[in-house]
Amino acid sequence: MLTLYYAPNTCALASLISLEEAGATYDTVRLNFAESEQRKPQYLSINPKGRVPALATERGILTETPAILAFIAQSFPAARLAPLDDVFAFAQVQAFNSYLCSTVHVAHAHRLRGSRWADDEAAIEAMKKKVPQSVGDCFDLIEREMLKGPFVMGETYTICDPYLYTISRWLEGDGVDVARFPKVQDHVRRMEARPAVRQALALQMAAAA
Amino acid sequence: MLTLYYAPNTCALASLISLEEAGATYDTVRLNFAESEQRKPQYLSINPKGRVPALATERGILTETPAILAFIAQSFPAARLAPLDDVFAFAQVQAFNSYLCSTVHVAHAHRLRGSRWADDEAAIEAMKKKVPQSVGDCFDLIEREMLKGPFVMGETYTICDPYLYTISRWLEGDGVDVARFPKVQDHVRRMEARPAVRQALALQMAAAA
Repeated sequence: MLTLYYAPNTCALASLISLEEAGATYDTVRLNFAESEQRKPQYLSINPKGRVPALATERGILTETPAILAFIAQSFPAARLAPLDDVFAFAQVQAFNSYLCSTVHVAHAHRLRGSRWADDEAAIEAMKKKVPQSVGDCFDLIEREMLKGPFVMGETYTICDPYLYTISRWLEGDGVDVARFPKVQDHVRRMEARPAVRQALALQMAAAA
Repeated sequence: MLTLYYAPNTCALASLISLEEAGATYDTVRLNFAESEQRKPQYLSINPKGRVPALATERGILTETPAILAFIAQSFPAARLAPLDDVFAFAQVQAFNSYLCSTVHVAHAHRLRGSRWADDEAAIEAMKKKVPQSVGDCFDLIEREMLKGPFVMGETYTICDPYLYTISRWLEGDGVDVARFPKVQDHVRRMEARPAVRQALALQMAAAA
């Protein structure tokens, strides 16, 4: 049995959607970020990084969205969530997801998590101020060079899609107008029409209630 | 034929070492960061992100260290650089490398690349000041929870090892005393005894001369 540790509206949504797309049987455990549950000893014994997502498997705990998404794709090959038999195409999927985690998510994190990288209040404010530009620049590149359309890798849906969708949902809060990116906007609409996405959104909202 | 675009002392070293470990036939192209070659049109046509590494393959360009390392491991299976037949173990490798790229490298980057996340000079200075702590915290976690020893994944060398080694080499410049981390220090020594690592270091130094 798989158990996903998550919090609503975090990057864990990408894993939740992928578990739904895979048709996996899984449990969820919701962490209350408002009460900093992710930093309490009980959760730190599961994920010492104090972050979500974490996926508990029969073999142990997995963390980091790109690794969890690839694990889901490889564990449920019938769902065809990644080009598992094509080393180059699989690497392209990995590269896209790596860019999201190491550059796009990081740019976004400077809005609310600036204290990771500076102690000074004025510096944290200065970081917040640049988020619309830095996140906007990332999405310019995604729109222009990376999102083949209609899905990230072209005609075929992959584990890149729930991850891009998850981060696209943060654009408004980051002060970036999604209307600048017609392909991204079309991608969001396609994603929101998918039963697995609706199911994952309903689950994260129900659990938050 | 593979061609690695790199600059000395960047995270591209991990890919260089892995190509050596794989016994791959490859070319290298060195970019001169002092002259911002990575931001000039010629290189942007190869990697529009303006960063290294990039690996040119017969099928196209790959970027992002975790993706390139997994690609090398999968393309040269005889070198046994990753547990390719074990989905969970492979995901653990990916999770470790994802942590290096999205958290450890990012913490380090606030020393010299703060202008990515703030325009204000004082804020950029405040970021620099926190690097010894934030990078040190990452390595505390690596030492305590992640590096199984002697290699990252235990007895078996994987694509996690050149990546950790590459980032460990930045500790001194980041103001972190590696002596705090005996397992990491032992890992550095083991890595530097490997012929592939010596070869990669010689190559990056020769090309820089």
